[in-house]
Amino acid sequence: GFAHVDHHRAIRQGVPEVILGEGKTAAQIVAIAKELARTGQNVLVTRVDDAKAAVVVSEIEGMKHSPMARTCTLERSPIVPLSDTKVALVSAGTSDLPVAEECAETMRMLGVTFDRIFDVGVAGLHRLLHKRPLLEEAGVIIVIAGMEGALSSVVGGLVDVPVIAVPTSVGYGAAFHGLAAMLGMLTSCASGITVVNIDNGFGAAFAAVRILRARARAARSTP
Amino acid sequence: GFAHVDHHRAIRQGVPEVILGEGKTAAQIVAIAKELARTGQNVLVTRVDDAKAAVVVSEIEGMKHSPMARTCTLERSPIVPLSDTKVALVSAGTSDLPVAEECAETMRMLGVTFDRIFDVGVAGLHRLLHKRPLLEEAGVIIVIAGMEGALSSVVGGLVDVPVIAVPTSVGYGAAFHGLAAMLGMLTSCASGITVVNIDNGFGAAFAAVRILRARARAARSTP
Amino acid sequence: GFAHVDHHRAIRQGVPEVILGEGKTAAQIVAIAKELARTGQNVLVTRVDDAKAAVVVSEIEGMKHSPMARTCTLERSPIVPLSDTKVALVSAGTSDLPVAEECAETMRMLGVTFDRIFDVGVAGLHRLLHKRPLLEEAGVIIVIAGMEGALSSVVGGLVDVPVIAVPTSVGYGAAFHGLAAMLGMLTSCASGITVVNIDNGFGAAFAAVRILRARARAARSTP
Amino acid sequence: GFAHVDHHRAIRQGVPEVILGEGKTAAQIVAIAKELARTGQNVLVTRVDDAKAAVVVSEIEGMKHSPMARTCTLERSPIVPLSDTKVALVSAGTSDLPVAEECAETMRMLGVTFDRIFDVGVAGLHRLLHKRPLLEEAGVIIVIAGMEGALSSVVGGLVDVPVIAVPTSVGYGAAFHGLAAMLGMLTSCASGITVVNIDNGFGAAFAAVRILRARARAARSTP
Amino acid sequence: GFAHVDHHRAIRQGVPEVILGEGKTAAQIVAIAKELARTGQNVLVTRVDDAKAAVVVSEIEGMKHSPMARTCTLERSPIVPLSDTKVALVSAGTSDLPVAEECAETMRMLGVTFDRIFDVGVAGLHRLLHKRPLLEEAGVIIVIAGMEGALSSVVGGLVDVPVIAVPTSVGYGAAFHGLAAMLGMLTSCASGITVVNIDNGFGAAFAAVRILRARARAARSTP
Amino acid sequence: GFAHVDHHRAIRQGVPEVILGEGKTAAQIVAIAKELARTGQNVLVTRVDDAKAAVVVSEIEGMKHSPMARTCTLERSPIVPLSDTKVALVSAGTSDLPVAEECAETMRMLGVTFDRIFDVGVAGLHRLLHKRPLLEEAGVIIVIAGMEGALSSVVGGLVDVPVIAVPTSVGYGAAFHGLAAMLGMLTSCASGITVVNIDNGFGAAFAAVRILRARARAARSTP
Amino acid sequence: GFAHVDHHRAIRQGVPEVILGEGKTAAQIVAIAKELARTGQNVLVTRVDDAKAAVVVSEIEGMKHSPMARTCTLERSPIVPLSDTKVALVSAGTSDLPVAEECAETMRMLGVTFDRIFDVGVAGLHRLLHKRPLLEEAGVIIVIAGMEGALSSVVGGLVDVPVIAVPTSVGYGAAFHGLAAMLGMLTSCASGITVVNIDNGFGAAFAAVRILRARARAARSTP
Amino acid sequence: GFAHVDHHRAIRQGVPEVILGEGKTAAQIVAIAKELARTGQNVLVTRVDDAKAAVVVSEIEGMKHSPMARTCTLERSPIVPLSDTKVALVSAGTSDLPVAEECAETMRMLGVTFDRIFDVGVAGLHRLLHKRPLLEEAGVIIVIAGMEGALSSVVGGLVDVPVIAVPTSVGYGAAFHGLAAMLGMLTSCASGITVVNIDNGFGAAFAAVRILRARARAARSTP
Ligand SMILES: Nc1ncnc2c1ncn2[C@@H]1O[C@H](COP(=O)(O)O)[C@@H](O)[C@H]1O
Ligand SMILES: Nc1ncnc2c1ncn2[C@@H]1O[C@H](COP(=O)(O)O)[C@@H](O)[C@H]1O
Ligand SMILES: Nc1ncnc2c1ncn2[C@@H]1O[C@H](COP(=O)(O)O)[C@@H](O)[C@H]1O
Ligand SMILES: Nc1ncnc2c1ncn2[C@@H]1O[C@H](COP(=O)(O)O)[C@@H](O)[C@H]1O
Ligand SMILES: [Mg+2]
Ligand SMILES: [Mg+2]
Ligand SMILES: [Mg+2]
Ligand SMILES: [Mg+2]
Ligand SMILES: [Mg+2]
Ligand SMILES: [Mg+2]
Ligand SMILES: [Mg+2]
Ligand SMILES: [Mg+2]
Repeated sequence: GFAHVDHHRAIRQGVPEVILGEGKTAAQIVAIAKELARTGQNVLVTRVDDAKAAVVVSEIEGMKHSPMARTCTLERSPIVPLSDTKVALVSAGTSDLPVAEECAETMRMLGVTFDRIFDVGVAGLHRLLHKRPLLEEAGVIIVIAGMEGALSSVVGGLVDVPVIAVPTSVGYGAAFHGLAAMLGMLTSCASGITVVNIDNGFGAAFAAVRILRARARAARSTP
Repeated sequence: GFAHVDHHRAIRQGVPEVILGEGKTAAQIVAIAKELARTGQNVLVTRVDDAKAAVVVSEIEGMKHSPMARTCTLERSPIVPLSDTKVALVSAGTSDLPVAEECAETMRMLGVTFDRIFDVGVAGLHRLLHKRPLLEEAGVIIVIAGMEGALSSVVGGLVDVPVIAVPTSVGYGAAFHGLAAMLGMLTSCASGITVVNIDNGFGAAFAAVRILRARARAARSTP
Repeated sequence: GFAHVDHHRAIRQGVPEVILGEGKTAAQIVAIAKELARTGQNVLVTRVDDAKAAVVVSEIEGMKHSPMARTCTLERSPIVPLSDTKVALVSAGTSDLPVAEECAETMRMLGVTFDRIFDVGVAGLHRLLHKRPLLEEAGVIIVIAGMEGALSSVVGGLVDVPVIAVPTSVGYGAAFHGLAAMLGMLTSCASGITVVNIDNGFGAAFAAVRILRARARAARSTP
Repeated sequence: GFAHVDHHRAIRQGVPEVILGEGKTAAQIVAIAKELARTGQNVLVTRVDDAKAAVVVSEIEGMKHSPMARTCTLERSPIVPLSDTKVALVSAGTSDLPVAEECAETMRMLGVTFDRIFDVGVAGLHRLLHKRPLLEEAGVIIVIAGMEGALSSVVGGLVDVPVIAVPTSVGYGAAFHGLAAMLGMLTSCASGITVVNIDNGFGAAFAAVRILRARARAARSTP
Repeated sequence: GFAHVDHHRAIRQGVPEVILGEGKTAAQIVAIAKELARTGQNVLVTRVDDAKAAVVVSEIEGMKHSPMARTCTLERSPIVPLSDTKVALVSAGTSDLPVAEECAETMRMLGVTFDRIFDVGVAGLHRLLHKRPLLEEAGVIIVIAGMEGALSSVVGGLVDVPVIAVPTSVGYGAAFHGLAAMLGMLTSCASGITVVNIDNGFGAAFAAVRILRARARAARSTP
Repeated sequence: GFAHVDHHRAIRQGVPEVILGEGKTAAQIVAIAKELARTGQNVLVTRVDDAKAAVVVSEIEGMKHSPMARTCTLERSPIVPLSDTKVALVSAGTSDLPVAEECAETMRMLGVTFDRIFDVGVAGLHRLLHKRPLLEEAGVIIVIAGMEGALSSVVGGLVDVPVIAVPTSVGYGAAFHGLAAMLGMLTSCASGITVVNIDNGFGAAFAAVRILRARARAARSTP
Repeated sequence: GFAHVDHHRAIRQGVPEVILGEGKTAAQIVAIAKELARTGQNVLVTRVDDAKAAVVVSEIEGMKHSPMARTCTLERSPIVPLSDTKVALVSAGTSDLPVAEECAETMRMLGVTFDRIFDVGVAGLHRLLHKRPLLEEAGVIIVIAGMEGALSSVVGGLVDVPVIAVPTSVGYGAAFHGLAAMLGMLTSCASGITVVNIDNGFGAAFAAVRILRARARAARSTP
Repeated sequence: GFAHVDHHRAIRQGVPEVILGEGKTAAQIVAIAKELARTGQNVLVTRVDDAKAAVVVSEIEGMKHSPMARTCTLERSPIVPLSDTKVALVSAGTSDLPVAEECAETMRMLGVTFDRIFDVGVAGLHRLLHKRPLLEEAGVIIVIAGMEGALSSVVGGLVDVPVIAVPTSVGYGAAFHGLAAMLGMLTSCASGITVVNIDNGFGAAFAAVRILRARARAARSTP
């Protein structure tokens, strides 16, 4: 067939395959989702537009669509909390919402607890500085920003926890569909910031999961 | 001959031609500088490397070389202060010094008063916030930064005076010789920031001169 | 909530937050606009397409839509003139009109007086040269041009006032959506020209506001 | 002065400022290093070429140069182990050594324990597969690769711990100085891989430190 | 007329002209297809969208449309098998299907026998390793992958037969419409991999035909 | 008003302003066309889509639309032949037709005589070589090609007359909307080929007009 | 052997092969030059650095080196004037001299008469306007400019003769080694300007030769 | 240690690891070469500059340096002919020699027989057409060309055997270090051409080896 589901992934990475909706037909998404659901796994579809989501929701019972996040989700088994460490999900502006919500939905499905700190771009720095306590409590920070992406440098300089930066395609002209933010985040003067693909809220959530799972496992193995 | 000096420029723009040293032979620089000096004008040569500067200094009496700024200057007539408004010359890191000093030398030659606020990159934000009073007093702010160039967004959000951003080629990899900073400054989320070419300390100084001269002229014409 | 309006901005920069319509839903724009209007501030929405504008206009009383400028505006309090210095708003061709009008609407809302000098591209240089007196009277010049953006170099060489260049995405092929004009303006052989993002008429207006406000404040503080 | 050392960083981030040697003169590096050493902090200089390193070593007692890593280090106080979690430092080929060693020196100075797994590029996959046990034991994996950077996708698919990918400028032609590897790592089909700047071994080490410090702190605060 | 069909191609290359549907009107495609069919040749149209395909199918008897492959085909004469060597057609993910099927249709029309090995991307490496016997039996391997395109490096390292890599435009953000995969495949650390244009399933099939035809001819000429 | 028609252009360049339809509203095109027609000049509108063309044709009597060329034309005065030298209009493939026809319409309106030599791309070289006599008779050759644009190098090597190359956006993937052809034509190994913008059939025609007008004028001034 | 001299070229194009010095060893240049000279042809070597030129001059009697133009020339037979039409060779600044002189040397060797109009960049427009009579007399104009390359648009708008634009790599930062000028010239708002490669003074001269030769031939064939 | 030699490669691919000299120190090259030689394998080092080559040759007995090809080779065991099919090694100009010779040395070391057809660029097409018989006899054709790389399209259209195109970094300006040729070859209008990295003569040879080995193996397995 056209798809060869990586059932082994849940064992290897603790997370079943996540379906990238973009570039697939609705029928293909349905088929793969059913194959995953068949074995009792939860299903997450990302980057799925409204038209495809309507088909997916109507074909699979229990499937839910979150239009802002552009995801479909099916909860076949209860979501187990991964860790009690909280992630701070920080975004620069209202236009970054779809990426932030894709990230939020992914974290929710993978058992991550998080706080939203939205619309705190550096053009009005006091908004971010007021949230400093929340930032300092977080175990991981995800920073989502478009245009020049400066927010990740400022956050990275304020805290010492892991910072995962997500450039977004918000902006126009010299933003070149997220290139400006992406280059800016990669060359950040704050040290040790890491970056995922443009608009990849899913990837940032998954990177946080990697950090939290390893931490939880380490904690368990310590007497 | 190879050069056609724009003697009229001092009348049109209040500033004699400035010689771009790069791409010219030492002999060409000397010839043009002499032609300008012949009419009693001050001379500024920018982007001149040490070898060429040595020739220029030895051939023209009174010519001085500033190696950090990569400039040669000849003061044939006293420098007249342009305005009593001060410019704040802000830079992100020590590696931005050559560009900042090119800017400083240009301002000095064109009669602009300024304060240096150096090495206040956003990775250590408190350094900048401590300088806030100086920034608020300035009539124009020039922000010089490489890597991701986030400093200009932060400064632009703090003040309401004109902000001229200079991306520098400081950094490596995804900095792509200043491209990251340039795109970042052009797409800044702080409104109304303007940008000059990568490493163009001279251009930023000249843009400040345009602002200050127009202001001074307006002030004079007001009863 | 999804938005965290920077109410402090009007105090810090004399200008309330301007809403970037692109990337927001109509509902989000309405919510933010109402939040701004609630405190008696004027509202400007930029880059808003016809469909969203229709919703915004129907939901908020007094909101007006300017389709050519792609803006919505709400005047809750009278617009106070910022300065009696005039801005010259110069554009190269008829296709640059949307960007020029976004700039015009922004200036109007922020109390700036200006003259339109449109369709004076360098392919017919006499058109510009005939307008020279108007250029020489201006206190700030905004030059809007697509394709190769040469107009800003020519204007910059004629006058000594601040020149803010706006590259537009007008053109095709090697124009690469405004890249050619943007690179051209940044590397202009006329000194001290500054540049804002491609198609950013709003940003150019705001940069002019920064210059005029600082000038007005300086004038007031001089006995 | 030209530098404004961020002494506060050691408090904020547990790590004193690291000096980026590139773009600074030897004299500037020496001055900043002395200023840091004055307060008893350890000093790390990165991206320092042989000529500058010679000056730095000769001017500051106890300073050591590691030519392969292009670093200078000064140990004023004993290095405290950060955590007992091990990092796996994986590199694709022998030409990636300078970046890998910069990463190693940074980890050593910041108290991180690590294993080197070098020259295991995917062209000879068995080399990597033989190291699978070492990879599975690691708490964090840093993958350093040039050319197409495929190694990070393969490693990312095998393990569920955090993977930090460092694209290198190794390669020629379409490698475009690390661009191919950088884009490849950012678009990796393995989920949740994060990326730092091209050749930024320092940044990857620092990102690992962020993960390990947060984990150690969490461990300490758990009864 | 607008088209000048290269009837000689079937003699020179054993394959009649293939019609690139993109950029042609349906009427032009029909005219060229009829001109080819007139001389008894089989017809293959590639990159033809559904609307044009409907016209082409309705105008030419026997023409068939394959929507997933975006091809139209007309079999006027029986397809002669080119060789008994099998091609392995390997693809990384379900989203690569349209390119893979364009390749499959081209091979089918040109008499090539092949096996499909689909959805075996490196994020779940075991899927590929299980297919190793199939890979080792193949005489030519075509590897189709988007995003970072790492699959071709892994395949290229496992086998010693010709590997033709097809980057696809699957992915978003830093994938830049196939650029990441294209650069990655060109700089592959596996030796002797060759690359065709982004999404060019047709080209890969044709490259395989060149290899198989030359091999068959050589075989025939050996006693 | 929004437009400032360059009426002087017909005197300066022998050709009235040509209206670039793209980026203008139908109403603007109509207004400018009427203004040009008012003084008895012929009107040519380029890059006008079907919807706008319908308005323009319905609003201005005598206006004609050529859909393949994407032009509208109004002949108010008879077209005077510019010269008896013939231009050869050569194109590589059927998909280049819109650009070739824009070029043809422009030449027709400006009084240039030409031959069409279409669909003679280098993949079937004999097609071009058969046309060699036509090429050798031409006084100017315009070569229109997309994809890799190799046709201009081959033509440029065969003849010694002026060759004007027009890269087209035909192709996909690494063609990058005409970039591949544009770079290829600019770096052609055939000497003295000149290039215009991607898809700029109009510009190539105008460049031919410059050559033919100068030649005709020179001929007239020779006794 | 390594070279296969195209002796036929002098017949086909009236100009013997010109040797591109770059990328060849001095020994290879000498061998090819001797092979050309052997048949009595004149020899022109371009892009030859000082070291190679020294060898070439010492090995071939009569060979001359022009360091500014980076050419070597050997006149074995008298240079025949190609036409009495004059070319205007216009350049924007002193830094463009090497490209302008390469162009001048090529024209001299190929029998073209020309005037130099140097250092007339648009930042001081009066310099160019004063030369307008010279421009209007020319039969062909070559415009050489770096940075933003605006000069070609202004010249193109003033005259109706053929304009050949040469972007140069003069400038820094956003000039990106000539890219800004190249894109600017290709998208010029002046119609019918044609462009050659960055720094390709040779190509522009050759393009002028194509125009002048065709014109001369046409003139001869007219009774 | 720093290197992990893939001894298994000779078994898997019939060819021992080839050492990429670039980015390695001379000492590293020597160590890896000795490790390979220890097991009786032949050694090939590519992209090795003169200084490193001198060390390598002096440290390892029997090692030979080919400066034009930038290779070092050690023949520990006799080279076994791979096949009696001949490869045609075609190059466009003399400046492509280093890449062509790297390819030639690789083929020689791997037992491939080949003919050199050099300096047959399309600017003088007759040179190539005269070699048509040689091309038609070849079993594989490697085409090496810089600048616009048109040669591969012309060759690809003339023959039906496998064509492997190697873009070179020969050229300047818009050649962008081989980008123009690379894009051109990837978008070739001749069908089924495959491409390797810029300047990758080694890779092209290896791709030919893959084709010839598979063919020889197939031949052996046929009764
Ligand atoms: N046309 C525009 N171009 C660029 N920035 C804008 C424009 N309109 C508004 N802005 C700014 O964009 C930012 C929008 O952030 P947000 O609304 O939170 O997504 C604010 O700082 C605005 O001042
Ligand atoms: N190799 C490196 N790559 C990236 N950043 C670095 C590197 N070494 C030091 N840094 C950081 O770069 C910044 C240097 O700024 P400055 O020294 O003020 O120019 C500091 O924030 C360092 O932490
Ligand atoms: N297809 C075309 N491509 C490039 N330039 C054009 C084209 N058609 C018209 N033009 C030129 O574009 C300019 C249009 O400027 P405007 O109409 O004022 O926006 C004029 O100088 C025209 O001569
Ligand atoms: N999918 C495809 N990708 C690339 N080239 C193609 C494709 N389909 C057909 N071609 C070739 O594209 C060329 C089209 O030229 P034309 O049809 O004259 O515009 C022919 O040489 C075909 O062999
Ligand atoms: Mg906001
Ligand atoms: Mg610092
Ligand atoms: Mg106009
Ligand atoms: Mg190795
Ligand atoms: Mg899959
Ligand atoms: Mg065709
Ligand atoms: Mg000058
Ligand atoms: Mg040659």
